[in-house]
Amino acid sequence: MNIMKRIMLIIAYDGTNYCGFQVQPNGVTVQELVNRAVSELTGEEIRTIGASRTDAGVHARGNVVVFDTKARMPGDKYSYALNPRLPDDIKVQLSREVSPDFHPRYTDTVKTYEYRILNRRMPDPTRRLNTLFNYFSLDADRMQAAARYLEGTHDFRSFQASGETNPDKETVRTIYSASVTRGNAADGNEDLITFRITGNGFLYNMVRILAGTLIEIGRGKLEPEDMKKIMDARSRDAAGPTAPPQGLTLVEIRYPEWEPWEVYENHESNR
Amino acid sequence: MNIMKRIMLIIAYDGTNYCGFQVQPNGVTVQELVNRAVSELTGEEIRTIGASRTDAGVHARGNVVVFDTKARMPGDKYSYALNPRLPDDIKVQLSREVSPDFHPRYTDTVKTYEYRILNRRMPDPTRRLNTLFNYFSLDADRMQAAARYLEGTHDFRSFQASGETNPDKETVRTIYSASVTRGNAADGNEDLITFRITGNGFLYNMVRILAGTLIEIGRGKLEPEDMKKIMDARSRDAAGPTAPPQGLTLVEIRYPEWEPWEVYENHESNR
Repeated sequence: MNIMKRIMLIIAYDGTNYCGFQVQPNGVTVQELVNRAVSELTGEEIRTIGASRTDAGVHARGNVVVFDTKARMPGDKYSYALNPRLPDDIKVQLSREVSPDFHPRYTDTVKTYEYRILNRRMPDPTRRLNTLFNYFSLDADRMQAAARYLEGTHDFRSFQASGETNPDKETVRTIYSASVTRGNAADGNEDLITFRITGNGFLYNMVRILAGTLIEIGRGKLEPEDMKKIMDARSRDAAGPTAPPQGLTLVEIRYPEWEPWEVYENHESNR
Repeated sequence: MNIMKRIMLIIAYDGTNYCGFQVQPNGVTVQELVNRAVSELTGEEIRTIGASRTDAGVHARGNVVVFDTKARMPGDKYSYALNPRLPDDIKVQLSREVSPDFHPRYTDTVKTYEYRILNRRMPDPTRRLNTLFNYFSLDADRMQAAARYLEGTHDFRSFQASGETNPDKETVRTIYSASVTRGNAADGNEDLITFRITGNGFLYNMVRILAGTLIEIGRGKLEPEDMKKIMDARSRDAAGPTAPPQGLTLVEIRYPEWEPWEVYENHESNR
């Protein structure tokens, strides 16, 4: 009899056509299609455990799922075996056998998100699916100055979706780095503004509310120093609007205390 | 009575969902939707004249069309008036009134194309629509060395689609610059290889056949010097395969001898 193994997948997807990551009754989700592909491949009924429940329209370059299987296939072969069973907008980037103790949510993580803003006079059809188009001239230097206030350990209650129902929920998080840069060397344009943030966890809608607030600062409606005042207010009303989902990408999830975590190290530039 | 004016539009589109640019009976094309939007706006039956007949699945950041209208609207307002009438994957970037003599095809042009190759171990769903995914490790330096042979005035018959039926067609073109670079500073990855080429004209499928040949050179199947030998052979059989359409983007069309051509100058970085 085969023994049970835990397999981890790093998954990238274009969230445009999905009702978010997590399985839900009212629409097709990324996880549902991953579960189906893994179940077909193994011949078992598999329900994967996901690391991050990205919202409808949000993208990922590196979400993480695990599942347990008795299939004999070596862990690193799952990526190749699953991709032909997945649609073009969902592809496994890496697969590995991991410790049966590893849980992608109940393990300390370092997550990185990017929010991408296309800041130009007219919309660009070829980048419409993974940027937010913004017509108003945004000052990326002001946005960068504001992003600096986010670094460190702070109470981010002001940047939590107002729909959060548990008032006692812990809202302190540590942000290891936050930056705003303008540039897009790929095509020589300077019309892409990227907000990149890495931390040990994020409240519901936190990156999108931060992005909405940074846009207000970039436009000149708020000052960079207001980012700190908004944080200190500990109230959702103090912050800017929630930026729409299509600009957001979950870039990477790392598990620093989990060995062997090295497999995560190079999945972005995996040549 | 209003006088007739000639209006020029610079148009960007994601070609994924269209049967190419030019109006044709068997499928929806970009030009068809542009014609419809302009006709609705002006109340006239407008058939635009296009500069470049991009193929099905090929994208554009700057294709050019003109049309004649008696509408009173100033030329620079058409972009704003038309975009709400166009789908998300087709957007006017700039509009201007131009000389009635200006014809976007029968005028000397300088065209720039990019062919983008996603060179990594696994497909990236968020970039699937405007790159060619290639699993094999490609040496961009070899490709760059090969691209250099294209610069100058040469007979490019080897890089013309074999379906070209007129054997007497002039196949000499001048390439002002051709380069291959690896890099994608936008997200810190190095997995994007961009072939960029600027010239006074291109034969049918020429950029895609050049891209297919450069990939063979990048993989090591051909040597960089073979690019010159292939060119000298003046035979389609000597060149590599035609790379698929989704990697190709028509970046820009300039009209150096046409005044005022300055309007074209800054449309890429139009902030």
